[in-house]
Amino acid sequence: MNVELINTGSELMLGRVLNTHQQWLCRRLADLGYVVTRQVAVADTGRDIETVVREALSRADLIITTGGLGPTSDDITRQLIAELLGKKLHEDAAIVQHIEQFFASRKRSMPHSTRVQALVPEGAIVLGNPHGTAPGLAMEVTEDGGWRMEDGPTRRSPSTINSQPSTPKWLIMLPGPPRELRPMFDTSVVPLLQRVLPLSGGYICRNLRTCGVGESVAEEKIGELLKPLIAQGLDLGYCARVGQVDIRLAASGERGAELVGQGETIVREQLGKHIFGENDDELEGVIVRLLTERKQTLALAESCSGGSIANRITNIPGASAVLLASLVTYANEAKQKFARVRAETLATHGAVSEAVAREMAEGVQRETGADYALSVTGIAGPGGGSDVKPVGTVFMALASASGTVAVKQFNPFDRETFKNVTGTQALEMLRRVLMS
Amino acid sequence: MNVELINTGSELMLGRVLNTHQQWLCRRLADLGYVVTRQVAVADTGRDIETVVREALSRADLIITTGGLGPTSDDITRQLIAELLGKKLHEDAAIVQHIEQFFASRKRSMPHSTRVQALVPEGAIVLGNPHGTAPGLAMEVTEDGGWRMEDGPTRRSPSTINSQPSTPKWLIMLPGPPRELRPMFDTSVVPLLQRVLPLSGGYICRNLRTCGVGESVAEEKIGELLKPLIAQGLDLGYCARVGQVDIRLAASGERGAELVGQGETIVREQLGKHIFGENDDELEGVIVRLLTERKQTLALAESCSGGSIANRITNIPGASAVLLASLVTYANEAKQKFARVRAETLATHGAVSEAVAREMAEGVQRETGADYALSVTGIAGPGGGSDVKPVGTVFMALASASGTVAVKQFNPFDRETFKNVTGTQALEMLRRVLMS
Repeated sequence: MNVELINTGSELMLGRVLNTHQQWLCRRLADLGYVVTRQVAVADTGRDIETVVREALSRADLIITTGGLGPTSDDITRQLIAELLGKKLHEDAAIVQHIEQFFASRKRSMPHSTRVQALVPEGAIVLGNPHGTAPGLAMEVTEDGGWRMEDGPTRRSPSTINSQPSTPKWLIMLPGPPRELRPMFDTSVVPLLQRVLPLSGGYICRNLRTCGVGESVAEEKIGELLKPLIAQGLDLGYCARVGQVDIRLAASGERGAELVGQGETIVREQLGKHIFGENDDELEGVIVRLLTERKQTLALAESCSGGSIANRITNIPGASAVLLASLVTYANEAKQKFARVRAETLATHGAVSEAVAREMAEGVQRETGADYALSVTGIAGPGGGSDVKPVGTVFMALASASGTVAVKQFNPFDRETFKNVTGTQALEMLRRVLMS
Repeated sequence: MNVELINTGSELMLGRVLNTHQQWLCRRLADLGYVVTRQVAVADTGRDIETVVREALSRADLIITTGGLGPTSDDITRQLIAELLGKKLHEDAAIVQHIEQFFASRKRSMPHSTRVQALVPEGAIVLGNPHGTAPGLAMEVTEDGGWRMEDGPTRRSPSTINSQPSTPKWLIMLPGPPRELRPMFDTSVVPLLQRVLPLSGGYICRNLRTCGVGESVAEEKIGELLKPLIAQGLDLGYCARVGQVDIRLAASGERGAELVGQGETIVREQLGKHIFGENDDELEGVIVRLLTERKQTLALAESCSGGSIANRITNIPGASAVLLASLVTYANEAKQKFARVRAETLATHGAVSEAVAREMAEGVQRETGADYALSVTGIAGPGGGSDVKPVGTVFMALASASGTVAVKQFNPFDRETFKNVTGTQALEMLRRVLMS
């Protein structure tokens, strides 16, 4: 199946916003078995959108567009696509009512311009938008629903050229704001795809997320063992980020579930202790879940990570049940005052040392009474390094009822990557203890 | 000028990584006057890359590809493009030497596979890569350098069809890792573009970044006043994110600098106090710069922002000169113990209250001796709201030698957006005081 994604918006072409739709939709679609073959972004001018939609219609079985469904003058996707497919637009009373209610519930009057969002091309399926005003629209481009070509006349879809029963083509328009697009995709688009463009024999995909093992080591451990399954149709993929490697197992057809299941067994046998989660799991989410289940608490003492570990943990709803405090003790005086690090330890070993990491963890555990206390101290760079302790050096410690453990790591990366990797290593250190 | 960007990589199509190149390159190119007209991503299979490069060659004056220059079997962009353009590859001794040195300086032996990165298509310009092994490559696609078509024979470039002097077409290949691509673009690609594809009459672009004013209010204040300049060729754009609006002024031609200058004067007159920076400035970077210049210090007491403000500040190199500590006092006991909030204030007003925000800021200022102490306490959601204090309610306070100020904000967004907007408001509160 040929799947194409079209992102529209002049702000994309000017680089003013990051195209998060591309990753999000590609990921969701791939995990459902509809791997995107081409993604295109163009400005929201009529000419550009028309060109890329026409090109996609000549190639793809499924086309998803994002953006251009709003009420302003540069929102023209709905109108353009209706014209391209020769479909009339009619106002949908239920959508008008939804938009009216949307504004009424916010105690705002409904601007007349928003009414354009209630226009629906004939034959289109309306995808409800509980988080905004513009609904999504899904249209089957049927055998006899050819589209207008650049130079005027209507051409029939290529699927009519041969005489065998043609596969339906689908064109789905989604609104631009992520908080509207994402729930709409999960709630409305997924069931629609599975109904109108079912994959023969189904499709199974499983992502196992690992931490603390490099891509090449992971490959060494599982590559050979998975070869017989790959020969039978298992698709194996690695995605490495600094500090983390995802292993993706996928297969289609009747034996798909069996192949993925056997593959997962092998990966779990070989990499078990490194696997912290599946699919969308994040390490911080796993930590919050494990601590919540055990009714245990956590406190942090962060120096070089600068609050990034607390930030990750507090991104998880319910974090307040487990996180008591994070003391971001950037200055030495703060390490002494809040984390109760001794002046002589700082003087003897320096702020970036195992001794200070241990005292930070033990100090914040004592002060907060948390079940677990995690600390990090290191040199994020770009300055501040020395021959003995180069930029990237970091010490981390974990204090709990069973004592304190400490490790040294070396993360010679740019500042933000350093903070991110260091946080991942610290959280993984805690996860291993929680799982042991 | 028609500029196209081609991002290659199967991990993009599977949604395993975010395509940050798209925003970064589009932004840089737009600000130089080379607005990208189309961005395409495809998997790194030969067929897909060949198709999109061929299509782009038929339309664009400048094509930039990213990825596929590394040493592994799926890095095929160099080879494919050389074949497409009918250019032989030869090994470049200087690149081999660079790669050897790269490994030697890391005390690693040079794998033989990396030698492929020293292959250069005939006539190509080598763009040095001080941060990695694969150099970038820039090639002029000349009048007589037609490219091989899908079905075999060589076709001449469309520019040869008419007899007027043809514009040169350029194809530039950049490596995938951002830490290699970005410096290479700034150091090598920008001067090359300005030399080989100069914009007639130049191009001037200026981004003014504002905070605390909505897009529609900004438009009301400057839209009418800028109209005469727009009629003369000034290009005005807005880019709104929650809490921030960027105003982009651009113009080309002889009067470009004058138009942008006059536009900037008007924007500064109307929105002056809201403008925190220009182009790539971030609010946290401005704060670190202002405090460093004044040799002043900052401490934070963060509740609902969960360390995100400290995280933003510590992303800035040199933050350690100004940030003493951030006390992420998530639990009430932590607010009492570390930020010295009184138990009766918590009991009387609740943790999410102006009184607690004030005590947090004053407490952390006293405890750390910082010149400025900023605090936030609120309800990030999704749970924890009430009729009186719904999800999104937040109080922030700023304590300094001139007393304590506090404000209430309402940010009813998802958890991460809430933290981000709240942090921006708190940092802007501090910036206003620093600028006053």
